Amino acid sequence: MKNDRRPAGHVVAIASGGLDSTTLAYWLKADGAAQLTLLGVDYGQRHSVELSYLEATAKTLDATYIRLDLSGAAALLAGSALTDARVPVPPGHYTDVSMRATVVANRNPLLLDLAVAHAVSTGADAVAFGAHAGDHTIYPDCRPVFVEAYRRMITVANEGFIAAGFQVLAPFIAMTKAEIVRLGTLLDVPFANTWSCYQGGRRHCGRCGTCTERKEAFALAKVFDPTGYETDGG
Amino acid sequence: MKNDRRPAGHVVAIASGGLDSTTLAYWLKADGAAQLTLLGVDYGQRHSVELSYLEATAKTLDATYIRLDLSGAAALLAGSALTDARVPVPPGHYTDVSMRATVVANRNPLLLDLAVAHAVSTGADAVAFGAHAGDHTIYPDCRPVFVEAYRRMITVANEGFIAAGFQVLAPFIAMTKAEIVRLGTLLDVPFANTWSCYQGGRRHCGRCGTCTERKEAFALAKVFDPTGYETDGG
Repeated sequence: MKNDRRPAGHVVAIASGGLDSTTLAYWLKADGAAQLTLLGVDYGQRHSVELSYLEATAKTLDATYIRLDLSGAAALLAGSALTDARVPVPPGHYTDVSMRATVVANRNPLLLDLAVAHAVSTGADAVAFGAHAGDHTIYPDCRPVFVEAYRRMITVANEGFIAAGFQVLAPFIAMTKAEIVRLGTLLDVPFANTWSCYQGGRRHCGRCGTCTERKEAFALAKVFDPTGYETDGG
Repeated sequence: MKNDRRPAGHVVAIASGGLDSTTLAYWLKADGAAQLTLLGVDYGQRHSVELSYLEATAKTLDATYIRLDLSGAAALLAGSALTDARVPVPPGHYTDVSMRATVVANRNPLLLDLAVAHAVSTGADAVAFGAHAGDHTIYPDCRPVFVEAYRRMITVANEGFIAAGFQVLAPFIAMTKAEIVRLGTLLDVPFANTWSCYQGGRRHCGRCGTCTERKEAFALAKVFDPTGYETDGG
């Protein structure tokens, strides 16, 4: 983040109902965003249950919630375990090679471009997303170099229409997930009301990459994990 | 275009059923694309009739046609005459200030992102779109500087997944629409089977910016205009 940044007036954030983006929403409010729009996208993911958690978060934070049906786009995204029912969600650690199956091609450009479209047409001042350092090894569109290339692109693409000083906020990009858990604790984020699991069951499976990463983050942060995992029994 | 470019194997083109993108499809085939996918997007535009023309073009060219329903996104794009029924389509010349009402915020990034998502997940070699020099004055996302910033962004965003030497083709970006008409004539493009009008009626209105521009292009190119305009009577 540059030192000259200021709290943005109206921020449009792409958000799931996950731990990272819920903490992002709380952070943006605490950081002084005068207006917050949370954009949840149903892109045909197995775990669209996350969006009901996002809607609840929006209510709590007095934010505007927009649920966008992009499920028609799933047909474009063959071969990802997140959108293609024929591809199994791999178990194990998030950084394993097998987790490459969970990469959705060009996901963050697409989601951010929807947020930018809304931001430009409503005169908003920034878009935001919850990419963090742990994502870098698998997802190329979660790296600082991506954020900068993206900011440059949308500034050029919308010249004359985009707000002066428009920002692409990725405040967690240098943080680990454990650090996000610690930040969320300070911000009173109700972690029990967030959803991470990629399997799309009724409870967190406790085995998939994101469940493994979620458990690990709470353990490393030494913060109580309120999640009810299938693997806990009960 | 760089001098080292080669005909791409599989090209995914975003296309309407308009004069430019129909000529683009014919050009890509003539240029040696081994496989061509035409991606038509219903983004809530008034003139979605253009997509039926696109489907016919795909059949003629033995290309794959994908129609993507993105109409849910129209809610994000308030304030454009193309998607908001409350905003009138301005008559007059395409380069008039009033035509700024037809700008859809962040449109080409969004449409290209869908093409890139499909291209990356299917291993295609390029995306293409039909921006031309006449668009530059109104649409910032039709300029060469945008194409370069966009190419850079998606290369970073999809590093490790995108095909080596992946191209963003905009072969008409330095051409006027009249030059596209002349090129289309050489390529035997059936202009009568293309759609330009923004009004969404059964015939071309003959008055809106794109109709005016279309008429003018045929006149400047000294090519017979087979379009049946409302303003012609009959």
